[in-house]
Amino acid sequence: MDYVTVRYVAKKPKLNNPILIEGLPGIGNVGKVVADFIIEKLKAKKLYEFSSYSFPHSVFVNEKNLIELPKIEVYYKEMKRKKHDLLLLAGDIQPIDEESCYAFTDKLLDICEEFGVKEIITIGGIGLQAIPKKPTVFCTGNSKEIIARYKKGTGINEKLYGVVGPIVGVTGLLLGLSEPRGIPAIALLAETFGHPMYLGVKGAREVLKVINKKIGLNINLKDLDKEISSLEKEMLKRTEEFSNISKRSAFKKLKQKLKEETSYIG
Amino acid sequence: MDYVTVRYVAKKPKLNNPILIEGLPGIGNVGKVVADFIIEKLKAKKLYEFSSYSFPHSVFVNEKNLIELPKIEVYYKEMKRKKHDLLLLAGDIQPIDEESCYAFTDKLLDICEEFGVKEIITIGGIGLQAIPKKPTVFCTGNSKEIIARYKKGTGINEKLYGVVGPIVGVTGLLLGLSEPRGIPAIALLAETFGHPMYLGVKGAREVLKVINKKIGLNINLKDLDKEISSLEKEMLKRTEEFSNISKRSAFKKLKQKLKEETSYIG
Amino acid sequence: MDYVTVRYVAKKPKLNNPILIEGLPGIGNVGKVVADFIIEKLKAKKLYEFSSYSFPHSVFVNEKNLIELPKIEVYYKEMKRKKHDLLLLAGDIQPIDEESCYAFTDKLLDICEEFGVKEIITIGGIGLQAIPKKPTVFCTGNSKEIIARYKKGTGINEKLYGVVGPIVGVTGLLLGLSEPRGIPAIALLAETFGHPMYLGVKGAREVLKVINKKIGLNINLKDLDKEISSLEKEMLKRTEEFSNISKRSAFKKLKQKLKEETSYIG
Amino acid sequence: MDYVTVRYVAKKPKLNNPILIEGLPGIGNVGKVVADFIIEKLKAKKLYEFSSYSFPHSVFVNEKNLIELPKIEVYYKEMKRKKHDLLLLAGDIQPIDEESCYAFTDKLLDICEEFGVKEIITIGGIGLQAIPKKPTVFCTGNSKEIIARYKKGTGINEKLYGVVGPIVGVTGLLLGLSEPRGIPAIALLAETFGHPMYLGVKGAREVLKVINKKIGLNINLKDLDKEISSLEKEMLKRTEEFSNISKRSAFKKLKQKLKEETSYIG
Repeated sequence: MDYVTVRYVAKKPKLNNPILIEGLPGIGNVGKVVADFIIEKLKAKKLYEFSSYSFPHSVFVNEKNLIELPKIEVYYKEMKRKKHDLLLLAGDIQPIDEESCYAFTDKLLDICEEFGVKEIITIGGIGLQAIPKKPTVFCTGNSKEIIARYKKGTGINEKLYGVVGPIVGVTGLLLGLSEPRGIPAIALLAETFGHPMYLGVKGAREVLKVINKKIGLNINLKDLDKEISSLEKEMLKRTEEFSNISKRSAFKKLKQKLKEETSYIG
Repeated sequence: MDYVTVRYVAKKPKLNNPILIEGLPGIGNVGKVVADFIIEKLKAKKLYEFSSYSFPHSVFVNEKNLIELPKIEVYYKEMKRKKHDLLLLAGDIQPIDEESCYAFTDKLLDICEEFGVKEIITIGGIGLQAIPKKPTVFCTGNSKEIIARYKKGTGINEKLYGVVGPIVGVTGLLLGLSEPRGIPAIALLAETFGHPMYLGVKGAREVLKVINKKIGLNINLKDLDKEISSLEKEMLKRTEEFSNISKRSAFKKLKQKLKEETSYIG
Repeated sequence: MDYVTVRYVAKKPKLNNPILIEGLPGIGNVGKVVADFIIEKLKAKKLYEFSSYSFPHSVFVNEKNLIELPKIEVYYKEMKRKKHDLLLLAGDIQPIDEESCYAFTDKLLDICEEFGVKEIITIGGIGLQAIPKKPTVFCTGNSKEIIARYKKGTGINEKLYGVVGPIVGVTGLLLGLSEPRGIPAIALLAETFGHPMYLGVKGAREVLKVINKKIGLNINLKDLDKEISSLEKEMLKRTEEFSNISKRSAFKKLKQKLKEETSYIG
Repeated sequence: MDYVTVRYVAKKPKLNNPILIEGLPGIGNVGKVVADFIIEKLKAKKLYEFSSYSFPHSVFVNEKNLIELPKIEVYYKEMKRKKHDLLLLAGDIQPIDEESCYAFTDKLLDICEEFGVKEIITIGGIGLQAIPKKPTVFCTGNSKEIIARYKKGTGINEKLYGVVGPIVGVTGLLLGLSEPRGIPAIALLAETFGHPMYLGVKGAREVLKVINKKIGLNINLKDLDKEISSLEKEMLKRTEEFSNISKRSAFKKLKQKLKEETSYIG
C-alpha cells in the first residue's frame, strides 16, 4: 500500500462539469454534517475510497458489530438538467500530519483534474465561545471571481481578514493547492460553538442554504434535524472515536519523542 | 535494513490450512499471555523474526545477562490430525506509530498469504475500572461468518458496538487489512483491569478456553497460573521496560518541559 | 510535489557576484523585519517560491480576503554600479523540523551556487530578558575572514562564544552547510526582547546600519518605524498566526492531554 | 545529502585487528569523557565525520567564535606492538530518533566491517540517585565469551539483569546490531550520579582502568581530572547545548503534532 492509495468501487462515470464539495471532520463537524446530509438526500453513489499508512492505525466496530478501517471517500451524483454534476468528499478522519495532508490533497486534486472538476467548495466551522443564535456564513477562496459569484444573492460575508487564523487541514489546503492548477475554490465557513462535543447542525443548515441556492440541489432542509439524529449518530461516533485515538496517538508519539531525554543508560 | 525486515530462523515448513493467532503486548497483556502460553505448551518452533528501524532504538539485558534487540516473532506448530496448523505472532513490542504499524501488518499479511493462512485470530483486552470477577470475552471481526462460527458453543459476546472505542495497533489493523485480501479474521477481546501494571491472566484464560474449544489445542489450562509465574515473568518484564521507556519517564520529563521557556537565536 | 519544490515566477536574471541575505521569522522577527524592509525599499523582484509538504498544512486569509499558502520566497535586486547584486530570502515560516530544515537549506544552497552567490548574510535576534536600550549587533560565521571584514568600521561584536546557545533553523544551518561548499557566510544577530509578541525593530535597525554600510544599500533608515507599521503589519500577522498554531494552542492542549488516561483495546 | 553521510578527512589507513570504542553523549557523559580523553592522550587522528538530516538543525559557536555543525566523528590510532589498533567514536550528539539511530548504527557497522573491526566496546553510565563514592563498572554484551574475557582480572560486574532498564541509543544498538554480523561487543557501564548537570568523571576513570588493563593503552589516569577541566569544558558545553536544543526541538515537534487537535477552522 502506497502513502495514499485510491480504490475505485464503481465504474468511472463521465461527469458534466463537476463541482467537488468537501466535508471532512473539523470544528463542529459542520463540513461533515453538510457532506453526509447531501450524500444521503441525493442518494449519491460511492466512487472511490482513500486509504493511507498515515491514517489512524486502528479499526472501529460498526453498528453491525463488524470492524471497519478509517476511510475517506468520494461520492458522485449526476444532476440531470443542472449545470454541474457533483463529487462529494466525506469521511471519518483528516490525514494526521503536514506531509500526509499535503500528499492526500495533491492526490485528490489529481483525480479532480481527471474528472474535469470546474470548481471546489470546502466547508468548515468557525469556533465561537458560545452557541450562535443565527450563525453567519463567511467565505474566502483562491480568486475574487468565485467569491463574488457565491456572495451574489446569498448574503455570505467575505470579510474574514483578521477574523480567523489559518484554515487548517484539507479544508484549507484544497483552496491553496488548487490555485496553481487553475481550479477556482471557495471555503464556506459557518459560525458554530467551538466545544469539541458540539455538533454544528445550525451552522450546517446555513451552509446548505447557500449551496442549495447557488448549485440547485433541491434539498428540503426541514429534514435536517430529523435526519441528523438517525443518520449522523453513527458517523459522528466514529469521527469522535478516531479523533480521540489520533489525540492519543499524537500523545504517544510525543512520549516516544521525549523518551530520548529521559534517564537512560548509554 | 529495510523499513520492516524479516529473517527466517527455520526452514519454511509446508503448513496445513494454517490459522494465525496474534498476541502482542497491549491492555493487560491478554494477547501476549495467550500467545506465549500456547507457544510454550505446544512447543511451537520459531519460524522468523521481524526487525524494524521503527522499533525502539534500545536493547534489554536478558536473564543470561546478554543483550537482545526488541523483536516480534512468528512461531509455527504442525497440528497432526487437526484441521489447521498454527502460526503464532508474539513479541516484546508493538510498532511505534501509524506508518510502521501499517507497514508491519501488511508485511505480515504478505507472509500469511504465502503460507496460505485461512483464518486470523487477534487477541486483546478491554480495560475496565476494576478487576473483573469472571471476565467476559467479546468478539468482532471482518465477516459475519467467522463471528457466527466462533460464537457457536462458546458463549462469546459479539455486541461490541458502542461498548468499545477503536481497536488500536496490530490487533486492530490485522482485522481491517486482511479483509480486502479475503482472509476472515476475528478479534477475541477479554475484559481485564485497565491498570498498566495488571497482568490479565484471568482474561487470558477465558480466551484460551475459546480457542481450545474451537481449534482443539488440547492444552491443560490448569497450568496457566503456575506457568505464568515462571514463564511470563521474564517476557513481561521486557514488555514493561520497553513500554516504560515510552511512557512513564516521558510523563515526568513532559511536566518538566512544560515549565521551560524556549528562547533561542534564529 | 517534492519534499521541497521551487517555482520560478520571473525569468532567471544574470546576477553580478550576488550576496544572499536571509531574513526568516525568528526571535523578535529581527531577520524578517530586515529582509522585508530591504525588499520594499529597493523594490526587489520576486524570483522564486519554495513550497514543501513539510510546511504548515494550512492557509491564511490575506488583506484581500483571499487565501495564501505559507511560503518562503527569494527576491533579487540588481545593484547598478555596486560590487554585488542581492538575493533576499523572506517568508512567513521556517521549515518545521530537522529534516525539512536541512533539505530546505541544501536546496537553497544548490540554487545559490547556480547564481554564483559569493557571500551569505543570515540575520537573527538574541532574546534578552528586557528591552535593550541600544541593541548590540553580534556576529559569527564560517570563516575568520568574513567576520574580520564585517567588523571593520561597524563595531559589531564577534565575542559570541559562551554568550549564546546554538543558532537554530535556516539562520544557523545556512552558515554550517555553506562552509563545505566554499561560500563564506556571516550571521548578524541583534539583541532584542525575547518576548514572543515583541517586534525587534530597534535590533533590525542596527543590523540594517551594518548592512547599509558594508554593502551600500543607500536605504534611508528614518522610514523604518513609519514603514514598519504599514508594511510589516500584515506580514507579521501571518507569521504570528502560523507560529501560534504550532505553539500557543498546543500548550493548552498539552496540559489537557496530561490529565487524560490512555485506555484502549489492543 | 543522504540520510546519513560519511566524509573521510584522512586517507584510509590499514588497521590491525581494530577495536571500536564508542563514547557518545549520555548519562553523566561517561562514554564521552572516556572517548574524548583517549583521543586526546593517544593523539588519535580524525578519520571520518558523519552528518545527517536527522541531527539537530542548528550550529554552535566555538571558542574561536566560528560556527560548527553538530558532528559525530571516528578517530583512529595505530597501536604499535599491540594486538589491536583502535577506532574511536566520539561526538556532540546522538541521533535524534528511532529511525536515525538505527540508520546511523548500521552505517557505522558497515564501515566497521570494511576495516575488519574485531570487537566493539560501548561505554555508558548508570544513573544513581546520589553520587557514588566508588562507582562500580557493570558489563553486558552480545556473547558470553567477550563478557568472560573482560571480567577476567578486572572485577567488573556482569549481573545487570534486573538492575537496569533498556540500554538506549547507539550504545545499545551497537551491541544488538553487531551480533548478526558476528562482531562480539561489550558495554561497560559505570555508576554515576543521574543528574543532567553532573559530569561522570569518577565513573569514566573506572571504565578507563578496565580498558587500560585489557587493551593496554598505557594512559596515565592521574591526568584525568586536570585534563578534564581544560579539555572537556568546550566539548561538554556543546553537548549540553545540543541536548537542550534537541529537547526543545522534540518539544516543538510535539507541539506541532498536537496542533491538529487544537481549535482550528475546517
